[in-house]
Amino acid sequence: MLRQFFQELTIATRGRGLHEFTRDVERWIDGNQFKHGLLTLHLRHTSASLLIQENADPDVQRDLEAFFRRLVPDGDPLFRHTTEGEDDMPAHVRTALTTVNVSLPIRDGRLALGAWQGIYVWEHRTRPHMRRVAMHFVGE
Amino acid sequence: MLRQFFQELTIATRGRGLHEFTRDVERWIDGNQFKHGLLTLHLRHTSASLLIQENADPDVQRDLEAFFRRLVPDGDPLFRHTTEGEDDMPAHVRTALTTVNVSLPIRDGRLALGAWQGIYVWEHRTRPHMRRVAMHFVGE
Amino acid sequence: MLRQFFQELTIATRGRGLHEFTRDVERWIDGNQFKHGLLTLHLRHTSASLLIQENADPDVQRDLEAFFRRLVPDGDPLFRHTTEGEDDMPAHVRTALTTVNVSLPIRDGRLALGAWQGIYVWEHRTRPHMRRVAMHFVGE
Repeated sequence: MLRQFFQELTIATRGRGLHEFTRDVERWIDGNQFKHGLLTLHLRHTSASLLIQENADPDVQRDLEAFFRRLVPDGDPLFRHTTEGEDDMPAHVRTALTTVNVSLPIRDGRLALGAWQGIYVWEHRTRPHMRRVAMHFVGE
Repeated sequence: MLRQFFQELTIATRGRGLHEFTRDVERWIDGNQFKHGLLTLHLRHTSASLLIQENADPDVQRDLEAFFRRLVPDGDPLFRHTTEGEDDMPAHVRTALTTVNVSLPIRDGRLALGAWQGIYVWEHRTRPHMRRVAMHFVGE
Repeated sequence: MLRQFFQELTIATRGRGLHEFTRDVERWIDGNQFKHGLLTLHLRHTSASLLIQENADPDVQRDLEAFFRRLVPDGDPLFRHTTEGEDDMPAHVRTALTTVNVSLPIRDGRLALGAWQGIYVWEHRTRPHMRRVAMHFVGE
């Protein structure tokens, strides 16, 4: 008999960069003893992303950030939407270039992540923010 | 008791740019009185995207479009696939850089969108097109 | 009565480029006679992507690859993470710019793909790899 569950996580970012929260997701799974099913995460913001990436070498996170900073420069004169500063519109572009959705099967109580995959909030604003992630589980 | 529902939307775009259709999705949810569940949208095309982005300041949409036009220039001599014109291959690249899938929890009859998030078809071809979005709901 | 099923596919890539596996997915659907439901695919790697793209003209795949190779050059001095070679960090960036998740409705036993859409593993490393895709189906 399939059932569904909802939860919302709040992630405190420390400003621009990747913030892993795989453990918070696993805690929800373990706490409810989800065994088999499908997990969906949705980030409720337009200037940060959800990302599944390498969680072994911290240089990967540093290099991802460096590449995106060069690809979408702060203060680019192309942009008109500068209400909240030079990093405002680049944050929207970086979100469009990545994603705000993640869908993961859960089997035997474990996320179907690869050996080196972690789940991140990628903060694109330079200042710290509180980021909300809606979580949904359907399964048994 | 969980149930599932299907529907297909057709969105008439007015050529390149973002076309919000959050209301059309909400109309389907309200019309069927979906209460709690998971909504999945899939765009059945390879030269347009689904995007969740800011729906407050229209400059954000204008700037997103301006950035992608500069990043993936029409008529780039790099491209061989030019059957349908200078905007043909750039449209495929822009689709690859974004996504054609969206997954959203629905709770108490409301999409788990953030305060500033809207759901868009991003038309990447210069001419208007009819774009089909497959919708699936599982829940109660 | 909704039920769920799991499976894992292994795709042998021939090195950098797009590798279609729509048929493998359809074989799983047909073999289990899934009629209506939701299919989720998750690629368990951080240096390859899942992509839904055109499967008619092979030049589209060639041009996508050419664009990404230019956008994220191998051996870029910006990158520190070079443990596995010049294509290592570019592969992570290319994965971040695309996605590792795909969600597709299935209706009357058929994937809701558009007429020209195929499902690909996009290998970003220059050498061939074995890539694992976790599949989940919920439906009837």
